[in-house]
Parts: sequence; structure tokens; C-alpha cells
Amino acid sequence: MEELVMINGAISKPSEAKISVFDRGFLYGDATYEVVRSYSGKLFAVEPHIDRLFLSAERISMKLPYTKKQYLDRMQEFYQKAPFDDAYLRIQISRGEGPITLDPYAPTTVNEVMYLRPLKPHPREYFERGVPVVIAGVLRNSKKAMDPDIKSGNYLNNVLAYKFAAEKKAHEAIMENSEGFITEATTSNVFCVVNGELWTSPDDSDILRGITRNIVITLAQGLDIPLKKKNFTRQDLKNADEAFLTSSTREVMPIASVNGDVLKSSPGPVTRRLQQAYYDYVKNA
Amino acid sequence: MEELVMINGAISKPSEAKISVFDRGFLYGDATYEVVRSYSGKLFAVEPHIDRLFLSAERISMKLPYTKKQYLDRMQEFYQKAPFDDAYLRIQISRGEGPITLDPYAPTTVNEVMYLRPLKPHPREYFERGVPVVIAGVLRNSKKAMDPDIKSGNYLNNVLAYKFAAEKKAHEAIMENSEGFITEATTSNVFCVVNGELWTSPDDSDILRGITRNIVITLAQGLDIPLKKKNFTRQDLKNADEAFLTSSTREVMPIASVNGDVLKSSPGPVTRRLQQAYYDYVKNA
Repeated sequence: MEELVMINGAISKPSEAKISVFDRGFLYGDATYEVVRSYSGKLFAVEPHIDRLFLSAERISMKLPYTKKQYLDRMQEFYQKAPFDDAYLRIQISRGEGPITLDPYAPTTVNEVMYLRPLKPHPREYFERGVPVVIAGVLRNSKKAMDPDIKSGNYLNNVLAYKFAAEKKAHEAIMENSEGFITEATTSNVFCVVNGELWTSPDDSDILRGITRNIVITLAQGLDIPLKKKNFTRQDLKNADEAFLTSSTREVMPIASVNGDVLKSSPGPVTRRLQQAYYDYVKNA
Repeated sequence: MEELVMINGAISKPSEAKISVFDRGFLYGDATYEVVRSYSGKLFAVEPHIDRLFLSAERISMKLPYTKKQYLDRMQEFYQKAPFDDAYLRIQISRGEGPITLDPYAPTTVNEVMYLRPLKPHPREYFERGVPVVIAGVLRNSKKAMDPDIKSGNYLNNVLAYKFAAEKKAHEAIMENSEGFITEATTSNVFCVVNGELWTSPDDSDILRGITRNIVITLAQGLDIPLKKKNFTRQDLKNADEAFLTSSTREVMPIASVNGDVLKSSPGPVTRRLQQAYYDYVKNA
């Protein structure tokens, strides 16, 4: 079996892995999730993912039944069952079943679904030549409404944004906020390089603070690459010397073009240094 | 059996009604839904609900497998199985199962879940004395990001807003938008009466255009009650002569207080006229 599902601790074949239609994850997207990958037979950066799972849950007033250490053990144990080395592990925790009401305090028991499959790496050329991205025709959810820093089951905003990428055969779609600033792509964060400075959106902007984003920020500081967390526009991005996306599966992935406008270099020198630093970091993790 | 579920045409006991954990409704809230109620053994206003189901599906690029007439037949047939007269019927259509990707064009087959239960009417005193509401501490999703006029499986914004009502033991929570205007409550629309004029948010504001809202607008016009679709603030609402909520189950429900500030009358004369007109309309529907 190539893929595995575990529901509340019980292993299930993917084709038989089912959840109640009254689960609030299905009814309202009332859930939180994380995706962790492995390198060389070891889950990578799993602790910060668990930290974020707890932060998301807390922000939607969802009580998690286990401690961080217990989630770590559950995920590690599940991962050990993988008959392959490089894995994609998704954990989704929903508020569970209960009476049909929006009330987050309604009595429910959370449901936990873990899913494990072989990691499908992105084609090598994506990393070597960069990928085309588009600016989506929908704005990113506002932090004051549905905070993107909550990694929840409400991903329709991202689905609608991704549609713009799919229609242009682009790799990703980047969303702006109501002020016209770049926020993030549908499943990745955005960086650009301007006059040797590395820019990424502020921590308190309308973004999910990605785990890979955090690692890249730390690596840039170690390499003495000047970093600014600041708002920037699509024009800034198009005029940038370099730009890249970050996510667990994309690592540091150069952006080749934005809405068809080709960037100056892809990958440029700063992107290449960070790609190398990231590979080194991963190797020693 | 008091409650019934039908999944893709097959009747199921609620306790056994399950859906794949790979259903995009569960993964992303990538679904649309409607709730229809009945009066005196007949589904009420089911055609406009089906129209809106199609509008929601179109806006998220989800192809529905049946025609409007076929959905009408499916819902009517399911409703006929109810061993009770006054029913609550929920239909949810998700984009279905497929590869894990945000791409709305990924190959999937939609899943349809219908749920039928006896209608639990709101206590009579809610209609006779009004209900307390609060202003939520989160903003309503913006139309330009996750359009509230799409009745989707992304309801976490509403769940987070409802939390404020639950914590204050209020009946509903009303959300403002980023401009400080009242939009709607978590599962109802908002009206207020100011100097004999009936106000409700514009059709193109950050709201779901409720079926009951539409009926009330038409009834007000028939009663020569001056109606303005206009933006108004929480202060306007608190200072209003009367205010009420509308939804399929709430019909015309007076608001007694906003954040603890008691309104001038609840129900006021305009609210009472509209309550009566709504009951008459329902009786003759």
C-alpha cells in the first residue's frame, strides 16, 4: 500500500477513510491542519509545525486533546509505518461532530485525520529555471476577518486564487490585500530581492507565517543578507532583481515571471545562495 | 427514525452517514450549501434556494451534475420521506474527492449530502420580545476576498463571529466590514427602521443576499414602507427606532438590544407589520 490514513489513531485504507457528514470540518471548514515532509527518513521541522497547529487551534477556540509531545509521538509513530522514505504527512484536526450550530463551544469531540503518502518532488527545472506566477483576481482574506495566519479548513479563498494560476498554466497565484500589497501565494510565501536587500511581507500582514519562510529568514541573517520585512506591491515584485517562493515542498523556488513579465534573473545570486543554504540546513537537520 | 441523511441519492442513518476524508468539503470547505424549511407539509421558497445554490456553485467554478428542476425533484422526494411535517432540510454539495491540490479544475466528482430533521422553532418570546445581539470582534469577509454572497463550506469567519454571541449569551453576532459598516449576522440579515424608513445593507455589500431578506423587501414595498438599501453603522443600529433579523428559521425576528444597549422598541410597529405580512405570505405560499 502506497498511502495510509489514520483516523483517531486507527489505520485505514484511503478508499475506506471516512468521516461523519456532521463533522464541522465538512460543514464549515471548522478545522486546522499542517503538512510536514521528511528528508532522508526523518520528519523535518515537525516541532514548529506542531507549535503552529496549537496556535491555529487556540485562535479558533478548539481544544486539542493531546499535548505537543503527544502529537509529536503520534506523528512520528504514524510516519514509521510509511513503506517509503520521503513522505508527505498531513494532519487535520476538526472540531468534530455535534449539533448543527456555528457555536464553537457546542459539545463536540475533535476528529484527527493523518495522511501519509510518498513525496512527489517538484521537477528539477522549477528550481533551476524558476516558475511562472500570476497575480490572482481575488484578494487575500484580511487578518481582521479570517486571519490567514490560522491554518484552517477554510481554503476556498486560496482555491479561488489558484484558479487564476490554473487558467494561465502558472505554478502559483499570488494574492494582494485591499491596500494593494502582496501578501502570499496560495500555498507559499513570497520573497523578492531589490538592490541586494531581501524583502518579505511583515509578520503581522495578511499572511500565514510559513515554517520555511522562518527558516529562510534565519538563514539570510546568518549569511549577512540584509532583510526587510516590509509591504511591497506587484510593481515592486515585477521590478525586483530576483524573487522566490517558499514552502515545505518548494523549499526556495525561484519566480521566473509575474503575469508573463519576466524577472531580471531566475534564479539570481541571492536566491542561489539561499537555495544552497537551505539544502545544507536540511542535510544537517 | 427522527432524522435522515441521503448521500448521493442513498439514504443513510445519521450515525452511519460518512464522507471520504479526501472530500474537498472536508479538506478546504470547498462546497456550497442551502437550508430550506417547510411550512404545513410543503418546502418553502425552494426555487430561490436552488437558484442561489447554482449561483454559489458557478462562482466557485463547481459544475453541478443535475438541472435546477432535477434538484427540485431530488429535494422534494427526499422531503417526502420525512415522518414529520415541519422540516429543516440541508443540502450540501462539495467538489468531491480527488488529488490533494487546490486546483478547482482537478478531476473530481461532486458529493451531495442532504439532511432532514424536524424543525425546532425558536421560542415564541424571541418573536414577541426580541433578542439580544452583539457586534462581533471580527470583521466580515470582504466581497473581494471570500465573497459572503457565496454560500460555501467556508464558515469559520461566522463561527469566530458567533463566539462573541456565545460568550455574551446573545442570540446572534453582527459583523462589520473594514469600513465600519454593518454587514450581516452569522446566519441572518439585518434591517433597521429609522424615522419610518426601513434600511438594509446594499445588495453588493459584504453580505449573503438572504432569501428571507428578499421576501421582506418585497413585502415592505407592498406595504408602502419606504425602503433604503444603504450602508449603516453600529451607532445607526443602536439609535434606530426598531431593528430585526431575517432568516428562514427566524423569519422576522426583532432585535431587543445591541451590545447590551436596549433599542427604542422591540418589536416596533414596522417590525410587527412585517412579521404579520410574512406570516400571511407564508400561509398563502
